[in-house]
Amino acid sequence: MSTVLPSQTLGTALYQENFSLRSPLPLKNNYLWKIETGVVRTFTWLEDGTLVTTGLWGPGDLVGKALSTLDPYQIESLTHVQASLLPLENEQIRSEWLLNHLQQIEALIVIRSYRRVDMMLVKLLVWLGKRFGRAVETGNLIDLRLTHHDLAEMLGTTRVTVTRILGKLEEQGLIQRLQLQRIVLKEDELWHYEI
Amino acid sequence: MSTVLPSQTLGTALYQENFSLRSPLPLKNNYLWKIETGVVRTFTWLEDGTLVTTGLWGPGDLVGKALSTLDPYQIESLTHVQASLLPLENEQIRSEWLLNHLQQIEALIVIRSYRRVDMMLVKLLVWLGKRFGRAVETGNLIDLRLTHHDLAEMLGTTRVTVTRILGKLEEQGLIQRLQLQRIVLKEDELWHYEI
Repeated sequence: MSTVLPSQTLGTALYQENFSLRSPLPLKNNYLWKIETGVVRTFTWLEDGTLVTTGLWGPGDLVGKALSTLDPYQIESLTHVQASLLPLENEQIRSEWLLNHLQQIEALIVIRSYRRVDMMLVKLLVWLGKRFGRAVETGNLIDLRLTHHDLAEMLGTTRVTVTRILGKLEEQGLIQRLQLQRIVLKEDELWHYEI
Repeated sequence: MSTVLPSQTLGTALYQENFSLRSPLPLKNNYLWKIETGVVRTFTWLEDGTLVTTGLWGPGDLVGKALSTLDPYQIESLTHVQASLLPLENEQIRSEWLLNHLQQIEALIVIRSYRRVDMMLVKLLVWLGKRFGRAVETGNLIDLRLTHHDLAEMLGTTRVTVTRILGKLEEQGLIQRLQLQRIVLKEDELWHYEI
């Protein structure tokens, strides 16, 4: 479905498009996608197929090949996503977009630097909660449809390890797992997590 | 030692300063350091003191707090370094500086995503060689005074592991180790490294 849009802050949006779960957003030279609703991830991959996540992006964020130096590079919807295609011609890449990308990847490299995988996972959940969480009665809800496999990929660990640690965190009352991969964080408790 | 400099591409350099090995470059708000000679690294650290390298920078590169979103943040000379202090006032952060920073950290997160530490280390050496290497008769010389501990920190592994793998790479004729932590890469062979 494509709809002609009125002019945006960044030139004029060519059209708006809907993407279902786990669809690639087409890469077009000199265009950026502006996420209107939902969440996408950007990633590259290694020769052996290992996926390397470089960011998760939500409403208002701009993503596109011009905002990364990586090749291969892909954008994929994690949830249902509505995005506008914006032309870059006659437009300079703005510093604030790059700073936004720098912030994401700096956060990810810091998270991945914890020596213990449980600490990595706790830091990742807290970061996801801060960026994408929604306050609910029982805590902070992350509703991104991220599978254990996805979380493992973001940390360079195995699905089995993520499953084991999430189980432990739930036992300790630090998180609550709901259907459809949703996770509720008990943020105060997680903040003090150390063992 | 400080010397008044004529105007630079980025406003006017306030002064030039020399730093000996392993000295911190002072962080000043609204100023960037332009590296004239030598190599510095930028890093942050975790609560437990783990150091997280976010880039290595050589002649022509600009570094400063304004080009990172991390706090804490530090710049440290790896070699003898000469750098100019450049004011940022009335200057916008330019996209190309941020893209340069993005490129470094994207490269580092990709290198750290290899599942095997030997692959990480080979990729790191090849990357260092490409950025800072100098062609010598026997190969590509990396002369950065990076200790095994430094390399381990960049990969989130242990010094012992780095020492063991470097020994193995040398036995296989893929690198040659010289005094003062210098390494000569046999790049053609390393390019095909897989085991």
